[in-house]
Amino acid sequence: MLKFEHPLTEKVRIYLRVETLMAQLHKSAKFASPLDDQILFRSLFDLMDLFEQIHVKSEITKELEKQKITVKAWANVPGVDQVLLDNILTQLDSCFREVMTSERFGQSLKEDRFLSAIRQRFNLPGGHCCFDLPSLHYWQNLPLDKRLLDVDKWISTLTPLHHALELLLKLLRGNGHFKSQIARNGFFQSDANDANILRLEIPSELGIYPMISGHKNRFVVKFISFETAKAYSQDVEFKLAVC
Amino acid sequence: MLKFEHPLTEKVRIYLRVETLMAQLHKSAKFASPLDDQILFRSLFDLMDLFEQIHVKSEITKELEKQKITVKAWANVPGVDQVLLDNILTQLDSCFREVMTSERFGQSLKEDRFLSAIRQRFNLPGGHCCFDLPSLHYWQNLPLDKRLLDVDKWISTLTPLHHALELLLKLLRGNGHFKSQIARNGFFQSDANDANILRLEIPSELGIYPMISGHKNRFVVKFISFETAKAYSQDVEFKLAVC
Repeated sequence: MLKFEHPLTEKVRIYLRVETLMAQLHKSAKFASPLDDQILFRSLFDLMDLFEQIHVKSEITKELEKQKITVKAWANVPGVDQVLLDNILTQLDSCFREVMTSERFGQSLKEDRFLSAIRQRFNLPGGHCCFDLPSLHYWQNLPLDKRLLDVDKWISTLTPLHHALELLLKLLRGNGHFKSQIARNGFFQSDANDANILRLEIPSELGIYPMISGHKNRFVVKFISFETAKAYSQDVEFKLAVC
Repeated sequence: MLKFEHPLTEKVRIYLRVETLMAQLHKSAKFASPLDDQILFRSLFDLMDLFEQIHVKSEITKELEKQKITVKAWANVPGVDQVLLDNILTQLDSCFREVMTSERFGQSLKEDRFLSAIRQRFNLPGGHCCFDLPSLHYWQNLPLDKRLLDVDKWISTLTPLHHALELLLKLLRGNGHFKSQIARNGFFQSDANDANILRLEIPSELGIYPMISGHKNRFVVKFISFETAKAYSQDVEFKLAVC
């Protein structure tokens, strides 16, 4: 089964981008492959770009507060697992405090002399040659333990964001359940009822991928054949969670 | 010892960039790490950017011809290894034919529907999320052997360039030999005598890297302390090859 996710709101679009970049950052930070430092810096700089375009900290704070209100509304409702609710509230409070007391995301990365020195040239085509960035070349040749210390210092500044985002996306994704659906002639549309994320599971043997457009009220899924890059015109049985 | 290289001509600057990107491309093409496909596409797209900015094929052709003239000038000079010369000439001829009969570098990559579809969005910050590029997400989930076939198809279009560049850079680098030098107060300057590349070996325990400026006639090396990012003011013993 191929899994796809699609954001229905601008806010979740950002969350998913940041989640992808954070996951890459954490994976590459182990330097398991000799090319991992490329991914590490690229992910860090992409995150810094996003933090400059969008005030992610205030977005996350607002969302944590919104989720707290939603969870509290379930308190004392008969049949609802109150222990689970309390647990989620505690996590939301903890993340909220962590985010509130943190700097603007990316602030200390921006102030890091080494990072800001290499950031501009890094995005040029092939701009990370040793003659473009001799300081990066020096750093790449440092012993692993020194590099790991630096990387840990950079990544740890994003820990509050990482914790909050993990919790928020878990809650958002938990709002929906997978149901079998059929896209007649490769086409499916439905109301979204204020949902945030669509999650799809598609049989991989069909050789298709979804093109999705939509917003929190309504969405359309069109399946495309990978080989021809044209619309797939047969019925598609797939699983969908509107979260 | 830390090794650095610096191009003294625009042409060699491009060669070194292409060499770096090709090396990344080949390393990542094995998919040894789950993040390698990021590097693979980034390297391919960076190369395509370079090929669009610069007519690399004609640059390489001219350089191969120039090298042929240089090598022929050594023929029949007493004391010169004629077998080696013949061998180099054969290689130059073979690369020349290969490059001449090839397409403009990057042409078929540009015409590849899948690559051109994902290329634009790939460079956005975090723009390779599955919702941005569902076709890429589909491709990434293909069985390894299918992906390797595609990658082999893409990379093989650059084989003539790869062979020629490898030979040319070997010849250019072979023009110089490492000699011990001292940078008084962290500063060294010299005539370059029509050289193309500077190669440096610096003791890694000094915690310094070189900032080099120069052209084919003259160059200056200033050593910088990595910790302070300021000029290193002590004498530096290092090795230098002016190639």
